[in-house]
Amino acid sequence: MSFAGKIIKCKAAVAWGPNQPLSIEEVEVLPPKKGEIRIQILASGVCHTDAYTLSGKDSEGKWPAILGHEGGGIVESIGEGVTSVKPGDHVIPLYIPECHQCKFCKSGKTNLCSVVRDTQGRGLMPDETTRFICKGHNVHHYMGCSTFSQYTEISAAKINPIAPLDKVCLLGCGITTGYGAVTKTADIQPGSTVAVFGCGGVGLSAIQGAKARNASRIIAIDINPGKFEYAKKLGATDFVNPKDYDKPIQQVLIEMTDGGLDYTFEAIGNTTVMRAALESCHKGWGQAIIIGVASAGEEISTRPFQLVTGRVWKGSAFGGVKGRSELPGIVEDYLNKKLEVDMFVTHKFKLEEINKAFDAMHSEDW
Amino acid sequence: MSFAGKIIKCKAAVAWGPNQPLSIEEVEVLPPKKGEIRIQILASGVCHTDAYTLSGKDSEGKWPAILGHEGGGIVESIGEGVTSVKPGDHVIPLYIPECHQCKFCKSGKTNLCSVVRDTQGRGLMPDETTRFICKGHNVHHYMGCSTFSQYTEISAAKINPIAPLDKVCLLGCGITTGYGAVTKTADIQPGSTVAVFGCGGVGLSAIQGAKARNASRIIAIDINPGKFEYAKKLGATDFVNPKDYDKPIQQVLIEMTDGGLDYTFEAIGNTTVMRAALESCHKGWGQAIIIGVASAGEEISTRPFQLVTGRVWKGSAFGGVKGRSELPGIVEDYLNKKLEVDMFVTHKFKLEEINKAFDAMHSEDW
Repeated sequence: MSFAGKIIKCKAAVAWGPNQPLSIEEVEVLPPKKGEIRIQILASGVCHTDAYTLSGKDSEGKWPAILGHEGGGIVESIGEGVTSVKPGDHVIPLYIPECHQCKFCKSGKTNLCSVVRDTQGRGLMPDETTRFICKGHNVHHYMGCSTFSQYTEISAAKINPIAPLDKVCLLGCGITTGYGAVTKTADIQPGSTVAVFGCGGVGLSAIQGAKARNASRIIAIDINPGKFEYAKKLGATDFVNPKDYDKPIQQVLIEMTDGGLDYTFEAIGNTTVMRAALESCHKGWGQAIIIGVASAGEEISTRPFQLVTGRVWKGSAFGGVKGRSELPGIVEDYLNKKLEVDMFVTHKFKLEEINKAFDAMHSEDW
Repeated sequence: MSFAGKIIKCKAAVAWGPNQPLSIEEVEVLPPKKGEIRIQILASGVCHTDAYTLSGKDSEGKWPAILGHEGGGIVESIGEGVTSVKPGDHVIPLYIPECHQCKFCKSGKTNLCSVVRDTQGRGLMPDETTRFICKGHNVHHYMGCSTFSQYTEISAAKINPIAPLDKVCLLGCGITTGYGAVTKTADIQPGSTVAVFGCGGVGLSAIQGAKARNASRIIAIDINPGKFEYAKKLGATDFVNPKDYDKPIQQVLIEMTDGGLDYTFEAIGNTTVMRAALESCHKGWGQAIIIGVASAGEEISTRPFQLVTGRVWKGSAFGGVKGRSELPGIVEDYLNKKLEVDMFVTHKFKLEEINKAFDAMHSEDW
């Protein structure tokens, strides 16, 4: 039977407030309005960004909310005017949409589509309301995704239906963010030297991107040497634990590389490391790309001489990848075995066990 | 008669120590050694960088020294092995040489030739000695140029001999630095929107670069509105005095431009303005280029979110221009009236009046 046009009752993990366990609740999901789609979520990753918001440190956090932004699902129904997907399509939700209409999309220079940015940042759908109701409360959306629900409403990229959703859901954020930062934002050339700071899922995926582009040297950096096994599998050639040195890591790397790296990537969200990543770049041409998300209010700094002598400081969100037009191709890369995803699925939990997933993420220091 | 191989006695303005007037002295200029050339300097600009070093704030200042780095002259004699120029060639001294041999030159990615960087920074020729003697003292070189002398030893770009050296000497630093930052480092596209912070010689030359590239909008920013007359002549379309506003200049510019600029250039050397220049850039693609030289020890800072959302922070030295291969073409641009130089020659002084030139530079706030 079809629920099109009707309310769906389903389970979701609701965050009632900061720094509390998520609560599994029955929620009502309203039908999609004009331009909206409703998705049945079949799998979702958990991400440090979800944990950051849940911790209460994210000044933009709204309560109650349904978190989660790394999902895979199937279109259940569509609102008026939707032509890009139809019920039954397999999709990955997008926290950065791609409307093809706003000045950002039209520029061709960025993936930062702005069409729903204002309401999305406030946990609302574009008409300033929510589609979730729980115990009589309107429940906020999160990053325009809210994948910790069996049904949600969203922007989405249509993907190949043979792709396993419980794997490619991870392409909705972490893997794409790291891989795209190397292959899209930095667009590195074969033979380049690369250092990646932080070997969690994002950093390891940056290493994958460097390997895919035939970097000549890929230095994996982490204070947890247990990560180096994974880094090596994915193509890293050198492994550096900053704790093994008394001198600043930028000095270690400059000495290792006869002057510094062609490209560095910060995949932690630590502003001190962001500076080290810039200052590890080679004079004249080295580029440092910030991928990690720093805590609210923190700032990066350096001497301007670092830039005047030719280093470039940039960053990217979602790896610079345009969701609707480019993410499906990354799913194909996975299906064609050009991109490793399976090893990032370290644990599987039911929705009811979602707090265990957060515990596992924290304990593994991913 | 030829002095080749012999000591030349001539006049020079010697800086005996920091924060003192320059002293006109008779100096001995030794003949060029292997790979060196000796130049008769016929004209020299004065630059704020000379004044900065003379002030004693430049931690790399060496004493005694012959300052000056914006010169025009004629090759007097050449050392063993020199093939790129011959006596009689008209040249502009280069504070960044172009050896075609070091890793920087070979990279093709930068103008920051490193061949003599170490000794140059210490005020010495590559054999660790100096070619200047005054009253029995070895006198240091400065920026590898020392153009405040009638004869000096140096790297140089061979230029068209019909170019008036008392004009094109300014292409040895300031004008090229601003013009190149726009046309080489940023390499802006036609139709771009541009803001230039600081309308001294460097900033005005950045405005020239933006005009040459057919920028759609060129916003000149200065706290001295007297500069706007020059900015307008060179192509600026809008004029902003930050003192006219209560709010931060980045907010003013973002509102003026519906979201920010495609390119901004900082031509002052003020780290607070460098931040404003970055934060005035458009989300998704705006690039801020640092041209100004900040005081020793000062740092730039911003929220990393500025970069993660697509702004790019970079800088350039000598406008990214490769001295021997590209500066002669800029001289041709001047001769073909594509580049304004004459209006930057606001005063002329004899070498003996060099302290008056510094006074004029300070009083005009150039």
